[in-house]
Amino acid sequence: MDMGSDTQSVRATVVQASTVFYDTPATLDKAERLIADAATYGAQLVVFPEAFIGGYPRGSNFGGAIACRTAKGNEEFRKYHASAVGVPGPEVERLAGMAGKYKIYLVMGVIEREGYTLYCTVLFFDSQGQYMGKHRKLMPTALERVIWGFGDGSTIPVFETPIGKLGSLICWENRMPLLRTAMYGKGVEIYCAPTADARETWQSSMTHIALEGGCFVLSANQFCRRNDYPPPPDYVYGNMEEELSPDSVVCSGGSVIISPSGAVLAGPNYESEALISADLDFGEIVRAKFYFDVVGHFARPDVMSLTVMDHPLVPVSFASNTNAEGPKKLL
Amino acid sequence: MDMGSDTQSVRATVVQASTVFYDTPATLDKAERLIADAATYGAQLVVFPEAFIGGYPRGSNFGGAIACRTAKGNEEFRKYHASAVGVPGPEVERLAGMAGKYKIYLVMGVIEREGYTLYCTVLFFDSQGQYMGKHRKLMPTALERVIWGFGDGSTIPVFETPIGKLGSLICWENRMPLLRTAMYGKGVEIYCAPTADARETWQSSMTHIALEGGCFVLSANQFCRRNDYPPPPDYVYGNMEEELSPDSVVCSGGSVIISPSGAVLAGPNYESEALISADLDFGEIVRAKFYFDVVGHFARPDVMSLTVMDHPLVPVSFASNTNAEGPKKLL
Amino acid sequence: MDMGSDTQSVRATVVQASTVFYDTPATLDKAERLIADAATYGAQLVVFPEAFIGGYPRGSNFGGAIACRTAKGNEEFRKYHASAVGVPGPEVERLAGMAGKYKIYLVMGVIEREGYTLYCTVLFFDSQGQYMGKHRKLMPTALERVIWGFGDGSTIPVFETPIGKLGSLICWENRMPLLRTAMYGKGVEIYCAPTADARETWQSSMTHIALEGGCFVLSANQFCRRNDYPPPPDYVYGNMEEELSPDSVVCSGGSVIISPSGAVLAGPNYESEALISADLDFGEIVRAKFYFDVVGHFARPDVMSLTVMDHPLVPVSFASNTNAEGPKKLL
Amino acid sequence: MDMGSDTQSVRATVVQASTVFYDTPATLDKAERLIADAATYGAQLVVFPEAFIGGYPRGSNFGGAIACRTAKGNEEFRKYHASAVGVPGPEVERLAGMAGKYKIYLVMGVIEREGYTLYCTVLFFDSQGQYMGKHRKLMPTALERVIWGFGDGSTIPVFETPIGKLGSLICWENRMPLLRTAMYGKGVEIYCAPTADARETWQSSMTHIALEGGCFVLSANQFCRRNDYPPPPDYVYGNMEEELSPDSVVCSGGSVIISPSGAVLAGPNYESEALISADLDFGEIVRAKFYFDVVGHFARPDVMSLTVMDHPLVPVSFASNTNAEGPKKLL
Amino acid sequence: MDMGSDTQSVRATVVQASTVFYDTPATLDKAERLIADAATYGAQLVVFPEAFIGGYPRGSNFGGAIACRTAKGNEEFRKYHASAVGVPGPEVERLAGMAGKYKIYLVMGVIEREGYTLYCTVLFFDSQGQYMGKHRKLMPTALERVIWGFGDGSTIPVFETPIGKLGSLICWENRMPLLRTAMYGKGVEIYCAPTADARETWQSSMTHIALEGGCFVLSANQFCRRNDYPPPPDYVYGNMEEELSPDSVVCSGGSVIISPSGAVLAGPNYESEALISADLDFGEIVRAKFYFDVVGHFARPDVMSLTVMDHPLVPVSFASNTNAEGPKKLL
Amino acid sequence: MDMGSDTQSVRATVVQASTVFYDTPATLDKAERLIADAATYGAQLVVFPEAFIGGYPRGSNFGGAIACRTAKGNEEFRKYHASAVGVPGPEVERLAGMAGKYKIYLVMGVIEREGYTLYCTVLFFDSQGQYMGKHRKLMPTALERVIWGFGDGSTIPVFETPIGKLGSLICWENRMPLLRTAMYGKGVEIYCAPTADARETWQSSMTHIALEGGCFVLSANQFCRRNDYPPPPDYVYGNMEEELSPDSVVCSGGSVIISPSGAVLAGPNYESEALISADLDFGEIVRAKFYFDVVGHFARPDVMSLTVMDHPLVPVSFASNTNAEGPKKLL
Repeated sequence: MDMGSDTQSVRATVVQASTVFYDTPATLDKAERLIADAATYGAQLVVFPEAFIGGYPRGSNFGGAIACRTAKGNEEFRKYHASAVGVPGPEVERLAGMAGKYKIYLVMGVIEREGYTLYCTVLFFDSQGQYMGKHRKLMPTALERVIWGFGDGSTIPVFETPIGKLGSLICWENRMPLLRTAMYGKGVEIYCAPTADARETWQSSMTHIALEGGCFVLSANQFCRRNDYPPPPDYVYGNMEEELSPDSVVCSGGSVIISPSGAVLAGPNYESEALISADLDFGEIVRAKFYFDVVGHFARPDVMSLTVMDHPLVPVSFASNTNAEGPKKLL
Repeated sequence: MDMGSDTQSVRATVVQASTVFYDTPATLDKAERLIADAATYGAQLVVFPEAFIGGYPRGSNFGGAIACRTAKGNEEFRKYHASAVGVPGPEVERLAGMAGKYKIYLVMGVIEREGYTLYCTVLFFDSQGQYMGKHRKLMPTALERVIWGFGDGSTIPVFETPIGKLGSLICWENRMPLLRTAMYGKGVEIYCAPTADARETWQSSMTHIALEGGCFVLSANQFCRRNDYPPPPDYVYGNMEEELSPDSVVCSGGSVIISPSGAVLAGPNYESEALISADLDFGEIVRAKFYFDVVGHFARPDVMSLTVMDHPLVPVSFASNTNAEGPKKLL
Repeated sequence: MDMGSDTQSVRATVVQASTVFYDTPATLDKAERLIADAATYGAQLVVFPEAFIGGYPRGSNFGGAIACRTAKGNEEFRKYHASAVGVPGPEVERLAGMAGKYKIYLVMGVIEREGYTLYCTVLFFDSQGQYMGKHRKLMPTALERVIWGFGDGSTIPVFETPIGKLGSLICWENRMPLLRTAMYGKGVEIYCAPTADARETWQSSMTHIALEGGCFVLSANQFCRRNDYPPPPDYVYGNMEEELSPDSVVCSGGSVIISPSGAVLAGPNYESEALISADLDFGEIVRAKFYFDVVGHFARPDVMSLTVMDHPLVPVSFASNTNAEGPKKLL
Repeated sequence: MDMGSDTQSVRATVVQASTVFYDTPATLDKAERLIADAATYGAQLVVFPEAFIGGYPRGSNFGGAIACRTAKGNEEFRKYHASAVGVPGPEVERLAGMAGKYKIYLVMGVIEREGYTLYCTVLFFDSQGQYMGKHRKLMPTALERVIWGFGDGSTIPVFETPIGKLGSLICWENRMPLLRTAMYGKGVEIYCAPTADARETWQSSMTHIALEGGCFVLSANQFCRRNDYPPPPDYVYGNMEEELSPDSVVCSGGSVIISPSGAVLAGPNYESEALISADLDFGEIVRAKFYFDVVGHFARPDVMSLTVMDHPLVPVSFASNTNAEGPKKLL
Repeated sequence: MDMGSDTQSVRATVVQASTVFYDTPATLDKAERLIADAATYGAQLVVFPEAFIGGYPRGSNFGGAIACRTAKGNEEFRKYHASAVGVPGPEVERLAGMAGKYKIYLVMGVIEREGYTLYCTVLFFDSQGQYMGKHRKLMPTALERVIWGFGDGSTIPVFETPIGKLGSLICWENRMPLLRTAMYGKGVEIYCAPTADARETWQSSMTHIALEGGCFVLSANQFCRRNDYPPPPDYVYGNMEEELSPDSVVCSGGSVIISPSGAVLAGPNYESEALISADLDFGEIVRAKFYFDVVGHFARPDVMSLTVMDHPLVPVSFASNTNAEGPKKLL
Repeated sequence: MDMGSDTQSVRATVVQASTVFYDTPATLDKAERLIADAATYGAQLVVFPEAFIGGYPRGSNFGGAIACRTAKGNEEFRKYHASAVGVPGPEVERLAGMAGKYKIYLVMGVIEREGYTLYCTVLFFDSQGQYMGKHRKLMPTALERVIWGFGDGSTIPVFETPIGKLGSLICWENRMPLLRTAMYGKGVEIYCAPTADARETWQSSMTHIALEGGCFVLSANQFCRRNDYPPPPDYVYGNMEEELSPDSVVCSGGSVIISPSGAVLAGPNYESEALISADLDFGEIVRAKFYFDVVGHFARPDVMSLTVMDHPLVPVSFASNTNAEGPKKLL
């Protein structure tokens, strides 16, 4: 890792906006408008919230209670599954095209569909319009475990790019100290944290991670009102529906950009959909790591060592090395 | 792998009928009549029972007892061998032609002849009239081991087709949990189970597999009376011959179609030769896998991993990559 | 491994009864009464349902919807956590005492508390009053994932006992083909399936497993009415509360005992709390495995091999081999 | 391999005698009487026929025809299973004791029971009374596949002993050229061929193998009359029963000892139960291999190479290296 | 490990006060006064800042610059060394006495002297007046590395006590994610964070740790003015001396108590020396871990595993099994 | 590969006759007379002995002893070299003409000359008069290694012909189990074994191979008297010359035809030059392979796999993709 580029500055934009729920084509259109705006402003990197494509089904419990299911919940899942994107697939191609057209690095939260299991995933695209790879959420939170599968160690990438080392953890994954350490071990400089957590304590975690990792932290959350979701009875906001009007804010955002020294560079915004932008001065990383380098001079590998199993975890593997992932290789 | 086609519906027909024993041309004629009927009804997929072409030699023990052979048993095997089909070969071409003529996907149980070893095999054809490939039974049951060879991991195909992912296991192979898991790992959606087991417990297994695999299960069995086989002394029904009249039902069928949620869509029929048909609603797969995705969110690959050796097992291989299978390559 | 004891017969009782919810001492008292009844009848083995101690929180969603929590749900979890049992601990000692007093092998579904994570666990006790070990559910289903942790490969025991090889999987774990195969690989003969699934399709799975594994299957489910749970507002039955009267059956049982040939020996009972008993004739295992021995003559290890990682999965391990589990070893 | 001992001579006895069917203790008593006789004669090595302990169920088809089973056949298998021996187990200890008491190397055909699968196995004991290991038949013949499992490459031993390199293949395994070559590759000098084949052509194979392998071949077969098996209806001789009187010879033996040059040293005996003995002059091996050394100067490894996969084939393996074989390791 | 005591409440006091620099007896007197005050208030646990006994030599560089030493700096270190405490030793006894007298659990920051090396250490005492053990800072920050040694994995204790599981990390150790995870792995409930960092960002880290660990966080810092240190020239405040008046605040405290849900229970105080107290409701831990249990249901040990080498690191060890910990134990 | 022609019958003749030594034109004339006779009898296939054209130099040692040569021996080799045939060449054309004229398949043992190396070769011709290919002996026996080169894996052909699959191994090559298995792997049905071994044990090997390979075995040997070779001193019968009269039989033949079940169909003849003929009933192959199919159902490719390197072995090869087989093909 060459650390000489400590004088570069990168203009980054965090998008705080809502999915067009159950309408993936319209969501992609909206993404393109937002990217275009950011690019006009000069952004080199655009980071979207968790599950922006596919949607974060806030307030729903998919008709479920322990050992109880409803046909309505099943159908709700079918629609949610249909809104998700295959990787690769036409939506991924469209996103790649946007990155190339606007010449930005793009970090996009999606709901990924593989077979019949969904994953909460972040996709990475470079400014040439190439899909670079993905991160799948390792550990969904609470009821998310009912609708999303679990990622594994093979999709915790950090990409070395001309704008710095780029990676992402999603929402409460950011609370997992061993997982963050895996990111630090890969040298992350621009740490993206798409999230669905709009509480104030989230800001503390973002600041802490910037300090702990000596990196820039870019957290993107959706800003949603009740009417960004379909109205009841198509979509019911669980035990809260009665308290909500169409204009009620159900997710207040709080997107933010923080420097390696813990300084807030932009945001948090709790008011509206917005683009939050800042210039990232890479000299800040050097200055911060002089005092605290979490996987460098401040580690104690003689006392504590972390092992990351980063091979894919698959239930069935085929010795001839044709795997079951791709549809053309089934025979 | 994109699984978004959750709204499609496929009309499938399971054939419950008997081989014309020791008469392969007549059996092919009968197959064509049955396919034509199914096509008239609108079937897009037609599934035949185990060993429909070549015959399932129920009740015979080929003159055998441990370490005892009879000339009559030897001759019986010679005739059985002569009724089998080579792959490729003229019978395969005729079957391909039927699939193309009636524009159906065809899953056909045959006795395959390779050299002097027979295999219990299922052949797959597409609606364009192309032979797609085959599955050979991995593990024959009980006395079947005396007349049939053992398949290997190279012929456990799942075909991606416009009507869904199509595969097949034969009879008690369906009881092998690791083999079923290999099928699940390949993403089977239409799981065909040609069989010779007409007992009631078979229904439990079919229902269980539909639930376990989150797939449609189509089980096809023959419906046979004693007089569907040659009369004695040409064909003797082992230790049961005396109890049988020409009309005695010796295999009562039980063909059935089951949905991914375990619901019986058609059958089981224990009464007669018949076509059993149902429309397969692929949305059912999504709804079922929401709760249980055996190789997705409900797997634990960190704890249990299955390896499938899917290369051909051959006793002799030739370094120059000409294999011993085809007659033109012997030199 | 000598399996010659094919003439033994074991009297087994499956308990179909409800937890006294949120009252673990009273549930233990009830367990003892049921065990005493079974012992009077001559039972050598008594199997209780999933989560009998600690309770199965049917109908609850712990106040949760995606990304929404309520203080009431939090408090509900605190009470549920308090009803669980530590292993070892006083409740485990009491259960061991019951097994010894009534000279029965005891298979008991409990909610296990380790630190602040709960597990759905089955405990095993021998007829000498010794605790033998435990199985933790590997993979909770749907909303269970919000309240229970995930087991690992170190607690999938099969115990060799004078009454046969004894093991257990819980509820939909029984749908996991690789996990069942791990049990078969350990030679399970008495396969206990505590469950919370009272649907008819469950019977198909139980029959299939008996055939597949060549083992006796004993499935125990609770029989519960609405008033076996606290009344609202202390306990709210999710989106079903309004449809329920105090006498409404919310879990109809279906406990059953099935032989290795797929014959139903006792049950299923969908009517009431009950003891379901049968004599298990071990000669049946030999007769069944003659035709199908899933990890013996009917396996194809040359084609498919399963690896089970059966070491404990711990996030932090200490090189000096003092683990973090027990409170006395913390320093 | 030290070939200097070409002057040694070993006295070997092949036992031609019948199992006491369904009576393993009596068969062991008979084995001891035969060993004692051979030892009196000076034998250093005693070789018994295939399945001597446990019995070769000649003429039975276990009630089976294709897809037809009878309760009687099932019960027959249960009794056969009960007559088999576990390895290790008390019968193995008793055999080891005989070898030690009479100071002979013992090669004993048994039916081995592992779980619910039976194997046709040969056990080896040294003259110190130690069990050395076993060979399991790789490939049963015809109806044997219905009652016996298949061995693997991990039990094809050749033991280096003071009386020479000792190994065994069973019955028609001796027809498998690659398997014999595996034995030659391990340097077998005393090649034991327990069998159930009493036809004349068997003698040709024995002579050929002696020439091909440059080794002594010792073939042991049972000599049985109809009344060495239980009378009908307990045991029915398939389709031959009517032709048989109690004194009818149903297996006429043909046990033989052949030198590396193809010379018949003793036997074949087709008359009666007998001990067939010869002195094996190891100089003969050297003389024979001067002209033809099948894995030495007469091989063409540049053109043909055989790979033997000699690891155990198990359907389930446990990462912690406790395997599922032994009953004490189940937890 | 039984965690059922979720209803207990513990009153805890964090001390924000300054060392009497270079005067250890006076510092001990001051400690006793503060403890007495806290006890009067009802405190069961009292936590002091980093280096309270022995002092935190803020502003000094011990006369050092890279490769330059001064006699004055040397003398300064001699005095600092003299102010430190041996463990065990009379100061430790006195502190133990205070804990017993006031019946409080005591967590005390000290400078520990072992031979000629100093360590930044935290000592633990129970309310019976027993010394329980110590934690040595693993990794000093910046110039601290010039005056303090490095701890190892053998002194990262978590003590199980009647008031909960008690442990401590010091200052920027709290930024080390693997070290915190070691604490979580030991089950820490009352996480003490003595520090010398008074910046605002410290609050973010404290909040984050409470959320991450699901534990109470108690951070204690000194509140110091310039005149809490000796005046120049005895003690020179480096390159800041000129900007300081005697009343200048040189460390503004910021001591704080935070709940497992991230709520601030008391503090932060940036105004003065003070006792900061709060009642810790252990039900909060259960409620927090329901959503996030860092080493329980929210870990992914299959993907990331941390190993802690928790044996003492000694430069010289003796094979005769005497350990090298204390100078008295060598023979 | 379709094997359905199990009802065909092929009339085959094995020629037992002597070379006209050192006179190749006369030997060709003799060959034609023998072929004509066989054709009259109805033969479709005629098999000649090893080295019929060129001669088998029985009794000669070419003047050699270890490290000793003689001019006489050198001259002897020159004459032997001159009697050999080039492939292609005029003798080959003549042989092809005979096959076409008499409409027989011809298998002819020759001494082949390539440059200055001789090979012991078998040539194959079809009944249309086409040369099909050749087999070169892989491994000469004993002193043969002094006069003949070694073949390689590129000339082990099996030809698919209207009269069946035809191949040949020469003399003690037939003792090589891996080489035979290569032939079986190619599906040989008519296995020709030209030889020079007239001992009785040869019959055992022929019978064994028929059983092992499930094929017809046709072994052709010369019948020679002393006066079939030139008289001394032109040709000296080594150290046996004195014991021989002109009429002494020096090779007694033993040509034989054996069926796949091990039945001797014709021969062995040890009396005179002769034509040995039999009708080969291909149904016998099916009946035999029902019980034993060496590369089909009776193989264990999971345990033993043979690799045949079937490319030409050449000392010099040229990267420009011209092969080195013939001197004319270099460019």
